[in-house]
Amino acid sequence: MTTAELELATSNTGTLETGAATMKALVYHGPGKRAWENKPRPTIQDPGDAIVRITTSTICGTDLHILKGDLPSVTEGRILGHEGIGVIEEVGAGVSEFHVGDRVILSCITACLKCDFCKRSMYSHCRHGGWILGNTIDGTQAEYVRIPHADGSLYTFPADGDEEAMVMLSDILPTGFECGVLNGQVKPGDTVAIVGAGPVGLAVLLTAQFYSPAAIFMVDLDDKRLAVAKQFGANTLVNSADGNAARHVMELTKGAGVDVAIEAVGIPATFEICQAMVAAGGRIANVGVHGKSVELHLEKLWDRNISITTRLVDTATTSMLLKVVRSGKLQPGKLVTHRFAMNDIMRAYDTFANAAKESALKVVLTNGASH
Amino acid sequence: MTTAELELATSNTGTLETGAATMKALVYHGPGKRAWENKPRPTIQDPGDAIVRITTSTICGTDLHILKGDLPSVTEGRILGHEGIGVIEEVGAGVSEFHVGDRVILSCITACLKCDFCKRSMYSHCRHGGWILGNTIDGTQAEYVRIPHADGSLYTFPADGDEEAMVMLSDILPTGFECGVLNGQVKPGDTVAIVGAGPVGLAVLLTAQFYSPAAIFMVDLDDKRLAVAKQFGANTLVNSADGNAARHVMELTKGAGVDVAIEAVGIPATFEICQAMVAAGGRIANVGVHGKSVELHLEKLWDRNISITTRLVDTATTSMLLKVVRSGKLQPGKLVTHRFAMNDIMRAYDTFANAAKESALKVVLTNGASH
Amino acid sequence: MTTAELELATSNTGTLETGAATMKALVYHGPGKRAWENKPRPTIQDPGDAIVRITTSTICGTDLHILKGDLPSVTEGRILGHEGIGVIEEVGAGVSEFHVGDRVILSCITACLKCDFCKRSMYSHCRHGGWILGNTIDGTQAEYVRIPHADGSLYTFPADGDEEAMVMLSDILPTGFECGVLNGQVKPGDTVAIVGAGPVGLAVLLTAQFYSPAAIFMVDLDDKRLAVAKQFGANTLVNSADGNAARHVMELTKGAGVDVAIEAVGIPATFEICQAMVAAGGRIANVGVHGKSVELHLEKLWDRNISITTRLVDTATTSMLLKVVRSGKLQPGKLVTHRFAMNDIMRAYDTFANAAKESALKVVLTNGASH
Amino acid sequence: MTTAELELATSNTGTLETGAATMKALVYHGPGKRAWENKPRPTIQDPGDAIVRITTSTICGTDLHILKGDLPSVTEGRILGHEGIGVIEEVGAGVSEFHVGDRVILSCITACLKCDFCKRSMYSHCRHGGWILGNTIDGTQAEYVRIPHADGSLYTFPADGDEEAMVMLSDILPTGFECGVLNGQVKPGDTVAIVGAGPVGLAVLLTAQFYSPAAIFMVDLDDKRLAVAKQFGANTLVNSADGNAARHVMELTKGAGVDVAIEAVGIPATFEICQAMVAAGGRIANVGVHGKSVELHLEKLWDRNISITTRLVDTATTSMLLKVVRSGKLQPGKLVTHRFAMNDIMRAYDTFANAAKESALKVVLTNGASH
Repeated sequence: MTTAELELATSNTGTLETGAATMKALVYHGPGKRAWENKPRPTIQDPGDAIVRITTSTICGTDLHILKGDLPSVTEGRILGHEGIGVIEEVGAGVSEFHVGDRVILSCITACLKCDFCKRSMYSHCRHGGWILGNTIDGTQAEYVRIPHADGSLYTFPADGDEEAMVMLSDILPTGFECGVLNGQVKPGDTVAIVGAGPVGLAVLLTAQFYSPAAIFMVDLDDKRLAVAKQFGANTLVNSADGNAARHVMELTKGAGVDVAIEAVGIPATFEICQAMVAAGGRIANVGVHGKSVELHLEKLWDRNISITTRLVDTATTSMLLKVVRSGKLQPGKLVTHRFAMNDIMRAYDTFANAAKESALKVVLTNGASH
Repeated sequence: MTTAELELATSNTGTLETGAATMKALVYHGPGKRAWENKPRPTIQDPGDAIVRITTSTICGTDLHILKGDLPSVTEGRILGHEGIGVIEEVGAGVSEFHVGDRVILSCITACLKCDFCKRSMYSHCRHGGWILGNTIDGTQAEYVRIPHADGSLYTFPADGDEEAMVMLSDILPTGFECGVLNGQVKPGDTVAIVGAGPVGLAVLLTAQFYSPAAIFMVDLDDKRLAVAKQFGANTLVNSADGNAARHVMELTKGAGVDVAIEAVGIPATFEICQAMVAAGGRIANVGVHGKSVELHLEKLWDRNISITTRLVDTATTSMLLKVVRSGKLQPGKLVTHRFAMNDIMRAYDTFANAAKESALKVVLTNGASH
Repeated sequence: MTTAELELATSNTGTLETGAATMKALVYHGPGKRAWENKPRPTIQDPGDAIVRITTSTICGTDLHILKGDLPSVTEGRILGHEGIGVIEEVGAGVSEFHVGDRVILSCITACLKCDFCKRSMYSHCRHGGWILGNTIDGTQAEYVRIPHADGSLYTFPADGDEEAMVMLSDILPTGFECGVLNGQVKPGDTVAIVGAGPVGLAVLLTAQFYSPAAIFMVDLDDKRLAVAKQFGANTLVNSADGNAARHVMELTKGAGVDVAIEAVGIPATFEICQAMVAAGGRIANVGVHGKSVELHLEKLWDRNISITTRLVDTATTSMLLKVVRSGKLQPGKLVTHRFAMNDIMRAYDTFANAAKESALKVVLTNGASH
Repeated sequence: MTTAELELATSNTGTLETGAATMKALVYHGPGKRAWENKPRPTIQDPGDAIVRITTSTICGTDLHILKGDLPSVTEGRILGHEGIGVIEEVGAGVSEFHVGDRVILSCITACLKCDFCKRSMYSHCRHGGWILGNTIDGTQAEYVRIPHADGSLYTFPADGDEEAMVMLSDILPTGFECGVLNGQVKPGDTVAIVGAGPVGLAVLLTAQFYSPAAIFMVDLDDKRLAVAKQFGANTLVNSADGNAARHVMELTKGAGVDVAIEAVGIPATFEICQAMVAAGGRIANVGVHGKSVELHLEKLWDRNISITTRLVDTATTSMLLKVVRSGKLQPGKLVTHRFAMNDIMRAYDTFANAAKESALKVVLTNGASH
């Protein structure tokens, strides 16, 4: 990926009204353009809002897509970022579960808890929320953020927690777990193949192990990523560069195929691999964000008794994941490879945009030093 | 029970070995060619076999596909048919659950009960059976049939049963129920759309009502079929001839889409309709037999939290369906529109092959008259 | 919508502070004592509150228990009632899903939607709600009621609805459905026995039919109630007066027992019947409110592969039930046998307290006439 | 437990018919009496039978119950034992999945695979099998055993397996897993309490970890057993000798109670502990064999939304467990504390009967040396 981003100067000081509190934030200025610049500090707009001072944030692959201009819902001037840890500075009158001073994990999904989708725990489709942070409202790569529907969108940071590890609970871990592992119905003794060893695929890998599958095959083009997967618990590595990944997996499973095939890339070729290696009675769980349609081989699959699932993360399992992290059975801090001060976010983006070269998985940003 | 059977008078043409008992059967002779002709009566080959005298059978849409030459697994000389009711004439030493003289329902799926798939109730993928009747072994459109793995492939015909109704339990009702209704997870209050009002779609319609959905939309090109669907319990009829079926359903559901979309045709266009009208959080259950791949719109569906399922019927619910039929809550006899003596099967095929013109749903064949 | 309400003319007896609006309400004054008397009209206390003008209410068996003094949580001076239909008069600043003038169904369970139990849809154990109406806060047998956490505790009354039927959705229908039918996992083809043909048992009976069981046995001491059950869809009636109910059911099921046994009384004898007639692999779903422990025959049941469930209704299925009612597949109005003006509630209680003699099921109260 | 068993002389040589092959076996001769004596070698009786030469067996707590005379179904002269590994010596004509020479794991449950219960995978209630080995037919504590319905009752011993470990798959591991873990629906992040740290409780403990619960509390009277539980993965040990086990667990869970309480003893006192510590919404899974009824506190539990389950092991998960063992995620060999030659079984029983004193968990018996 080539991102020739024009870097805007970190100034813009005159645009703020006199007396208005300001903060620094990473702002999107159209395809290829981002800046770390002054913005007004957010204020309470609705009774359900909370204002959170960000202490830790991170960059998501989706942020890179936004910067390419792939997401028309993100308009110029938007503060990016939908992951973070912080401290509550102010709450609206309708917030009952959180208080000023509480340290919180910010969910990437905003949930009103009251609409029909929220009542079914399908927060991703909340009629008043869903994925809006760093998308249709300002996000978390800033010093402060406004969180609407705070009671449904924040989680108490545990006293003994590690911010760097816990920020993985904002998005990547529930994404891997809900879209990949739960939808794939991973069970003890299953064989599981994960296609894509990027950060999300690795989050699938970490959380699939909650259910003691007998074997996890990791499929990727990049041997370095596969080596990381091995350290994270993958049993067998399959480099797909030769175009024969599915065939290799079929051979490894003696022709049976895998019980669960998890797509964690988002392109037709990887979805094709999943179809070619799923066992009769198996599940294909799609995690990747797709920009194009794919070919579904119903002429081969109509009688194979399989399921295919799609899902935007609901972050409905954040409490469960918190319990598993706290029990020591999941160590999400493993996903962190690089650390930057938030002030240095322009450089952090450069690193993350060259993930392969930099061997970067998750890049953590901290505001702590400046307070 | 003593069965003093009349020797078959018709045409022992000399091709049969002396002394070998013969019978009449509907035989496939390559694309477009079928004959009602003499064949040797089947005999026990394995300890698990039963020989069943067929009293009632029927023709399936799949039989028409075979006659077109679409299924290479069916070779010339094969007796067709995978549905039937009959009386056991002989059992192998390993058959324990059935006895000579028992009246039985024949399942279209042969299940050894012992392999790994059978132990998971995935009889469709039985390593020693599956769909073999009238496919890779001789079938039920005959006077007699050999049923391998009889203990797993036969069901006791209820004392108070009606053969014409019960023969629908061989294939079409479990197909509609398992592949459509169970896989679609129809629940009380759901909105359900069934695409295809042929016999299988109507079987979905009848069995979907077990779960009290709030509304069932029936989609088809043919108003006559739709009118039948109305009688069978469909709430709303949508003629798809204008190419806007999905749009109509979306309007009828005020933009929400349906909780369950069931594909009961087997072509790309109808699968497309299902994708276009499934609600966020909904299920697409594929019932149709597909000859071509379809386009799957992951670019629209990746974040819609849906599932897509495929299934070859397992007939794992036959006992359940029998209970419901016997309770009077399901009246499968409704599906029968035409009746023929088995001897008249050539004409029956002609009728069924022109189902639209003849307003035919299921065509029942009886051997009874000749005994 | 503007509601110009008539000042209450009846008897502002001087005990109320000058200027305070009053209303009439059914007030508990200790065991055996109740009065229809003046009380202050409720006002908004918290941002999540709504004030609802009651148009229809009803009396629950639990209200009779309260009047006997069985529930220490209910203190003197409490307005009783936890069921009702009404019109919203006022909402707090935090209420977003409902507006003044909306016609609503009141749930007997108050749900904050934000606590850990609510997020699991276990509203009955809401940390800020649960069953509090007519229990620890004033209830619905009045002209007005304050509903805390209105967004989680109210449901939109459908435009085409019938108040008399819909008030059954406040408590009795979700109770029968959730505690009996869902917990009992009623499936098509199942045999189901319901012990107790009172209003709750009948609500189980009505909603069990959503799932097309093959047979429903109704067990009760009272032939009149059993006759009603027959009209409501029970297949077989078993009068338990001879002490042999379980034996009769075992004979009727040829020794197999029932797949689902539902206890809808709340005494040891009826729970005993359930244990004695549940099939291997079956479920006992407890609906009754028990005042004493029961004997559990683990010496007989330990190897029977059964489940026993308990549940306080969550009203988590109210939306689903609304859809089924609106589809015409459930007609809860059948449960209503008597109608009174709310002003006549003292007499309504007398009738309901003599349900057997009066052949009373549900007694509906309406405020409508006086407005 | 004191077992003053009269030891019969190992003789009886003259009772066997001339020419009949004999073998040694552990024979029950009424309460308190057992002998290692000559018996005729079993022969094929039905087409589904297999004759297995036992290489490894073990003793179950149930065998001790039999020896006390607690199980009237076991009559004098019966060979005990329902666990074992062996090699197939002979198969009946109806056996298709196994062959002479195959090394196999014997399931404690005999499954015909054909009856209604077997078709639901409820092998424990098989109409032609269930738990019959060492109960109503001769068992596995012998040199040879006849296994009826061999295709449903044997499992292929893996090439790389360890007999000592694998013999735990005959009974104890599926018992702990199915009756405790699966019925208790253990999920990632759950808190689980296991009451009883004997072999079965430890099997629950080992298999509960398949699902990554956040914490497992182990409750027992015996600190030595608790220490073993600690080594096996228990997070917190609770000695129940002070009669306050439930109170301790409630304190440890800050009043919430446990999501899953598993009873692995079989007496009223331990079932009482489970009731007192189960959380609202939780599950009590009974594993213990009960000789008496227990008091069920429905007066407290009716509104707690819990489930209570019972189950005789079905060994329906043996294939799954085999996969997990082979993956290295479960090491059942840990349960073995003592080893004896089969010839020395009388002494092995003495050791196992004094399990507490001997610190015995599972006692393994091997025939291997003599062949």
